[in-house]
Amino acid sequence: MTNLSLIIDINSEKFLRIKERALLFEDKYLQKVSEIIEDVKNYGDKSLVEYTAEFDGYEIADSFSLDREDLRQCYEETDDELKESLIKCKTDIENFHKHQIEKSFFIKKGNNILLGQLVNPLQRVGVYVPGGKASYPSSVIMNVVPAKVAGVKEIFLCTPSIKGKINKTVMAAAYIAGVDKVFRVGGAQAVAALAFGTETIPKVDKIVGPGNIFVSIAKKLVFGFVDIDMIAGPTELTIIADEYGNASFIATDMLAQAEHDELASVLTFVTTEKLAKSIELELNLLLKDLPRREIAINSLKEYGGIIVVNDIYEAINYSNNIAPEHLELQVENPMDYLNFIEHAGAIFIGSYTPVATGDYVAGPNHTLPTSGTARFFSPLGVYDFIKRSSIIKYNKIALNAEAKHIITLANEEGLIGHSNSIKIRLK
Amino acid sequence: MTNLSLIIDINSEKFLRIKERALLFEDKYLQKVSEIIEDVKNYGDKSLVEYTAEFDGYEIADSFSLDREDLRQCYEETDDELKESLIKCKTDIENFHKHQIEKSFFIKKGNNILLGQLVNPLQRVGVYVPGGKASYPSSVIMNVVPAKVAGVKEIFLCTPSIKGKINKTVMAAAYIAGVDKVFRVGGAQAVAALAFGTETIPKVDKIVGPGNIFVSIAKKLVFGFVDIDMIAGPTELTIIADEYGNASFIATDMLAQAEHDELASVLTFVTTEKLAKSIELELNLLLKDLPRREIAINSLKEYGGIIVVNDIYEAINYSNNIAPEHLELQVENPMDYLNFIEHAGAIFIGSYTPVATGDYVAGPNHTLPTSGTARFFSPLGVYDFIKRSSIIKYNKIALNAEAKHIITLANEEGLIGHSNSIKIRLK
Repeated sequence: MTNLSLIIDINSEKFLRIKERALLFEDKYLQKVSEIIEDVKNYGDKSLVEYTAEFDGYEIADSFSLDREDLRQCYEETDDELKESLIKCKTDIENFHKHQIEKSFFIKKGNNILLGQLVNPLQRVGVYVPGGKASYPSSVIMNVVPAKVAGVKEIFLCTPSIKGKINKTVMAAAYIAGVDKVFRVGGAQAVAALAFGTETIPKVDKIVGPGNIFVSIAKKLVFGFVDIDMIAGPTELTIIADEYGNASFIATDMLAQAEHDELASVLTFVTTEKLAKSIELELNLLLKDLPRREIAINSLKEYGGIIVVNDIYEAINYSNNIAPEHLELQVENPMDYLNFIEHAGAIFIGSYTPVATGDYVAGPNHTLPTSGTARFFSPLGVYDFIKRSSIIKYNKIALNAEAKHIITLANEEGLIGHSNSIKIRLK
Repeated sequence: MTNLSLIIDINSEKFLRIKERALLFEDKYLQKVSEIIEDVKNYGDKSLVEYTAEFDGYEIADSFSLDREDLRQCYEETDDELKESLIKCKTDIENFHKHQIEKSFFIKKGNNILLGQLVNPLQRVGVYVPGGKASYPSSVIMNVVPAKVAGVKEIFLCTPSIKGKINKTVMAAAYIAGVDKVFRVGGAQAVAALAFGTETIPKVDKIVGPGNIFVSIAKKLVFGFVDIDMIAGPTELTIIADEYGNASFIATDMLAQAEHDELASVLTFVTTEKLAKSIELELNLLLKDLPRREIAINSLKEYGGIIVVNDIYEAINYSNNIAPEHLELQVENPMDYLNFIEHAGAIFIGSYTPVATGDYVAGPNHTLPTSGTARFFSPLGVYDFIKRSSIIKYNKIALNAEAKHIITLANEEGLIGHSNSIKIRLK
């Protein structure tokens, strides 16, 4: 049995380290990433072939892309039980996301002015899927389905084939979700290709999906040429529990979080010392049989903690300060506290809602803001794949009625041509 | 009278230059801006004082900020007519933006699962206002009011005081719009201060507002630490007119666009050669008395054009390709064409809706996506100042019913701790 000691104080150095780890400003790769982007922009596919050979150890020349038929074959080769669960995941995500659809509207302002807002889907979206162990089929579904629900016409996926390896379940998920084409490139070079287009890869309107530091910096640098989603950091969970909380449940949830990644973080706030100790004990027991034991231990050592608080409100206060990606409320009457939660990517309510429900089948997206960015970012959603156009329609009477104010403001700003564009119509 | 020749061909070098000017990837300032950000992050106010002395020629030490009372004084000193028009602008913008308010929702999935989405305003927003001639009171209102309507609690404004100068009407607009505090700093250093906080300037959740190349790069680099709005390029207009179009109206609108900035662009598509010639003639006549004549001439020479097309649909096709910031439809039955417009920041319908209506009082925002980014960005709106949290609530029956799928998917992804978090609850 392990003997991890996890109960920490809110004023401890460890708690501070966990809270502050978001605040790294990484600029040492800026120049390198900027060079990669310039190369891909200037030399297109040729540059992709070279970088892929260099970084992924893979010659893409002959098998650059997979089309729907290739993806269908991966789907056919998937075992039935897994197929069924992937389809269930897709259907549930789709059903929830339909509630996020935004409609165009028109309103009248007085009798003579029509105003409005048109909502249209983006036309082309690029989804980035990391290679290796972080290449999750569920994430493909979570990234693609909201775009489909929004009405995006073409969806392309880029993922590195490290040493030529391909994850067939990820390809099956891409088939189910409705991806049009997969390109076997990754890293900053894939982001650049999607942003500027190459002979093979079409220029898209938006790039979504998590990646390593090179991918994140590339996304920032191409922002403005295309839209991007949030910048993903390591995953994290905050649990709030009172005496109603079940120590075994909480301990498994902490481990499910910690097993993701050595950088994953989990902070559990409990209202009694007794519960803190039970959770710690359970957790050490359960660790024994966990396949990803080493990862979980390292994550918990660096970024895990159990903190005893006076009451639930104190815990919520700390949680609002953290703005966690995932928040579990394993307390009596959890719904009573919803109004007090200011920042959280997703809130899991009660003892029977472990984070794993939301990872796969609940319906809301599992692509969530990390590192405190729930203060200003939202879960990935249909709203990420639409854009709006304003509508303004005046007639002569309306223009006459408002002319005075337009002219006053335009003159104040020194834009006499603006005033003239009103005056000429009043003659 | 000037003798500008503006009728160009769709295949001309000039048309291509106008269309392609968006595609500059500027990385030569990356390192410099990154250094400024590091400095402000590490040395706070001290660094702001130094950069402001260097770049703006202004010692901010004693008059770093203006509070509500200072702003109120600027407001009191504003003349009554201007006050009235600024308030009209604020009220109209507010009324339209109220239609963009998004509500939280809850839905049931079967009998045992509750799902939902909480909508909350951002807490703190920073608005950047450029110095000099591009410092517009109307833009302050356009940037601040949507944040207020969303429910943002604190709004800070940063603007450079070049050689100590302050624009009192901008301060009056800040008062009317509801800005809490103004800081007299600009450039990349202001963006860094808002992103990371200093002794005087609070860290915000989102930074909005246009700026020069340093401001734009700084916004990109701090993205992720805070949210940002779009990256603003030079302003632009596309006009589509048929024989119903009035040459004088169209010519004034072209000049109102061109007077903004030597980089401003206006492209007018007309269905008859006759109208093209009349517009060109009118424009040359009207240029004579325009105060910002030189700017308008340079803008039109470089980025202005009148193009004859076969029909309105051909023009709309070109316009969709351009994805203009502003689009005017000066055609018969303009509403019939709305469904064909795929990308445009704002659409001005009919002969009595010059862009100037939307610049000041119509209601929709005048902060619009430029340089073809209307393909994926929206006008600034209430949706820019809120964020969402997902809600998931299972009971034991629900968890039991979906357990099989969660476990199948978690096992496939090698996340046995995730499976355990389900299994332990089914015992």
